[in-house]
Amino acid sequence: MNERSLIDKILNGIVVYETVRIYDGKPFAVKEHYKRLINSLSYLGREDEVSLNDFEKEIEKNISFDRVKVFAIVSDKVELYSVGENILTKRVESVKIDISNVRHADPSSIPPNFKSLSRADVFLARQNKGDNYDVILLGQKGQVCEGSFSNVFLVKGGKIITPSLESGILEGITRTFVIDMLKENGYTVEEKIVEVKELFYADEIFLTHTSMGIVPVNYLGKFSLKTELSEKFSRMFEEYLHAKIG
Amino acid sequence: MNERSLIDKILNGIVVYETVRIYDGKPFAVKEHYKRLINSLSYLGREDEVSLNDFEKEIEKNISFDRVKVFAIVSDKVELYSVGENILTKRVESVKIDISNVRHADPSSIPPNFKSLSRADVFLARQNKGDNYDVILLGQKGQVCEGSFSNVFLVKGGKIITPSLESGILEGITRTFVIDMLKENGYTVEEKIVEVKELFYADEIFLTHTSMGIVPVNYLGKFSLKTELSEKFSRMFEEYLHAKIG
Amino acid sequence: MNERSLIDKILNGIVVYETVRIYDGKPFAVKEHYKRLINSLSYLGREDEVSLNDFEKEIEKNISFDRVKVFAIVSDKVELYSVGENILTKRVESVKIDISNVRHADPSSIPPNFKSLSRADVFLARQNKGDNYDVILLGQKGQVCEGSFSNVFLVKGGKIITPSLESGILEGITRTFVIDMLKENGYTVEEKIVEVKELFYADEIFLTHTSMGIVPVNYLGKFSLKTELSEKFSRMFEEYLHAKIG
Amino acid sequence: MNERSLIDKILNGIVVYETVRIYDGKPFAVKEHYKRLINSLSYLGREDEVSLNDFEKEIEKNISFDRVKVFAIVSDKVELYSVGENILTKRVESVKIDISNVRHADPSSIPPNFKSLSRADVFLARQNKGDNYDVILLGQKGQVCEGSFSNVFLVKGGKIITPSLESGILEGITRTFVIDMLKENGYTVEEKIVEVKELFYADEIFLTHTSMGIVPVNYLGKFSLKTELSEKFSRMFEEYLHAKIG
Repeated sequence: MNERSLIDKILNGIVVYETVRIYDGKPFAVKEHYKRLINSLSYLGREDEVSLNDFEKEIEKNISFDRVKVFAIVSDKVELYSVGENILTKRVESVKIDISNVRHADPSSIPPNFKSLSRADVFLARQNKGDNYDVILLGQKGQVCEGSFSNVFLVKGGKIITPSLESGILEGITRTFVIDMLKENGYTVEEKIVEVKELFYADEIFLTHTSMGIVPVNYLGKFSLKTELSEKFSRMFEEYLHAKIG
Repeated sequence: MNERSLIDKILNGIVVYETVRIYDGKPFAVKEHYKRLINSLSYLGREDEVSLNDFEKEIEKNISFDRVKVFAIVSDKVELYSVGENILTKRVESVKIDISNVRHADPSSIPPNFKSLSRADVFLARQNKGDNYDVILLGQKGQVCEGSFSNVFLVKGGKIITPSLESGILEGITRTFVIDMLKENGYTVEEKIVEVKELFYADEIFLTHTSMGIVPVNYLGKFSLKTELSEKFSRMFEEYLHAKIG
Repeated sequence: MNERSLIDKILNGIVVYETVRIYDGKPFAVKEHYKRLINSLSYLGREDEVSLNDFEKEIEKNISFDRVKVFAIVSDKVELYSVGENILTKRVESVKIDISNVRHADPSSIPPNFKSLSRADVFLARQNKGDNYDVILLGQKGQVCEGSFSNVFLVKGGKIITPSLESGILEGITRTFVIDMLKENGYTVEEKIVEVKELFYADEIFLTHTSMGIVPVNYLGKFSLKTELSEKFSRMFEEYLHAKIG
Repeated sequence: MNERSLIDKILNGIVVYETVRIYDGKPFAVKEHYKRLINSLSYLGREDEVSLNDFEKEIEKNISFDRVKVFAIVSDKVELYSVGENILTKRVESVKIDISNVRHADPSSIPPNFKSLSRADVFLARQNKGDNYDVILLGQKGQVCEGSFSNVFLVKGGKIITPSLESGILEGITRTFVIDMLKENGYTVEEKIVEVKELFYADEIFLTHTSMGIVPVNYLGKFSLKTELSEKFSRMFEEYLHAKIG
């Protein structure tokens, strides 16, 4: 591989990617991530140029890590490139989130499932999150969308609520598994357009993302939140994952 | 420079850039481009890490080309990287443009003057431009914004009209020079929110961009346009540039 | 009825209404109009206070006219009030339309099916229509919505296209009958989000409204349009109506 | 005056209006209200048809009331109509507000200063306010606008904040007097785009409207608020008004 030329391709082309979690040498939800990478490539008309086998090979190279980022660099051809990482993040004592001043780009501008590098809205939100664990981006109408690296769930009166895909969000793979798990356990999960006031009126809030699973939230700005159900769901999800991986 | 490490920085960080035109070994509007690069960096709080001298050095390295792209790769530090290119584009016989189905990201999501790599909205619009010279992106309210690599001007009843910065557009450097030139020559230039119907009702349309200056438009979709004033402005701008460069 | 008191109720309350067409003493689509009036009242929680019989009585009072407007004045109670009118409008020689500078209020602000008096957006558009037969209001994203008193249809390559209800428009009763008729006659009718450029790229445009049925459009701004299919549909609809009324 | 004909004019035309407060037989801010009525009429091109003298006569007729609503009924001519009312509202013990699910119509649809009867967005918000004193309407981007009959102010760290006119709100006459009074008393008043989260993070919130002046808010949904400064401002404004009326 000619490195100079790869840099030029990155700088002149576009890069889409996926992050896959690896538990004790076993990658999780590989097919789901592959499918989503192909979907990202489809916006560029390049969905036929990466096979599942190509994708799995990149994961295999990094199997000793906690997670692997697989990049598809799109120029005259599509080239895969991967980086393994160990997760250093420890469970933080107190998780605080807030609402970002950066708005989520509208689906009419950037399809939420087009997972491209340096999505400027999400990047700028993360850059300016200060001492928050994550910040929530609102959409063009002010609706609740998602965190800069997580999806958001509310608990209100025993019911679980999360922004629907129509809100203009990425279909998070952990999000989908969490919804499935909660429904399998008899909980009501409502996917809908969520207003900002609902965040403040929630009993509990939790985040979901690939690296940490379910993260209960202790503070929304200056307001403290209960975490009883969120803690329970977090433990439940760890067991759910281990059962899935086998 | 370790190439692998630079690639990792690009893939994990964010890249902002400028494209500078070089006429016979003389770079054009260097300070204006430097100022805009610094403005892009300011959204990341990194505006103090690149000097004018650093920027000029990158241009100097590529002074034998027609234009140079200077990238600022932002990770733990800010590193400049540059690529020189010769312009192969010839004046095309008949310039056709159309309106993109991709909308321009709102300033609340991505500041128009944050000139970052792989801006997904603009990239997707360009990818899907078909046989058009360029396509015009509309904003979130449906207002006319800009082409995927150009700014747009209308001629209507002898008056020149172009989307105002409040429309949510990049402050194009060529755009600014063209406005100045037209005003200096006694033309009325109105910067305002431009509706789609105004494109169709225009007498003439022309584009402006760094590589080609002023480009008269022959067709908006199926409708042909006059180019009398646009041709005149195009020639006038070449002389204006040469006088500036001296 | 105390007139002064009725005026006070109108000025302090809110008024919803329907306009019913009467052909040779036979009112058309009474149940559809009644159902829509009840729907308007439902936004005020007052849907149980007007019976079909009450509604029919108001129409009966004005049966010698060409059309009757039935108003429901909502204050402490709901009172019906009606006005009969004869249609003086003659088929105009040349129908010109344009795009209004007034945008249609978003469904998040005013439900499109809440047919209330003095809807300011629609009223202001009509006031400023100049010499146009009607003007088209665009929605908040710039999508094509509807005329100030009509629905809009496009013909493109033999296919008929009209803004979908999701565009944020009133479910016009004539619109629905026209769609049904066209489908029954083997035409393809696509209801979708329509962009402004599609108006300009259309082969033909026609309007529909209660008073005149189908109105072929000769001019969109400065551009002339064919009317071949529109004229055919207009005649077809007159026969369709007469068959329905029996 | 033929009453039947006036009803027909109201039902077929449009009505704009102003509400003027009368303190002990002295009307307040008559010229300001007249100016705003004329501004409403200007959207209909009818600003020349009502004189200050006409307006004052309507107020005079109702001078024994606490307030008078002056309606301008716009049809072939502009006719004034007025209704006097006594304010029965007592200071409520505990003022609760919330955020409406109805969004404020965008200025591109209905100019905020076009104070017309039965503005459906504001009417529907008020209808559904439940046990709240008033509800706050958000704009199309989710920004804080105004209550259904009041303007909203926040106190945060000693500074007073209120939505700017660019937020798309009516220029409330009481709002303007309150801003002037606060500035004259050395307070910092910031007019800006206000996000929903700022309502929840505020130390205090107060409303302003013609009938009651400044109303301190005790609850935003389930959250209680301090009222120390708001109570002070409320008393200060009563004195300010009495000094103005003299």
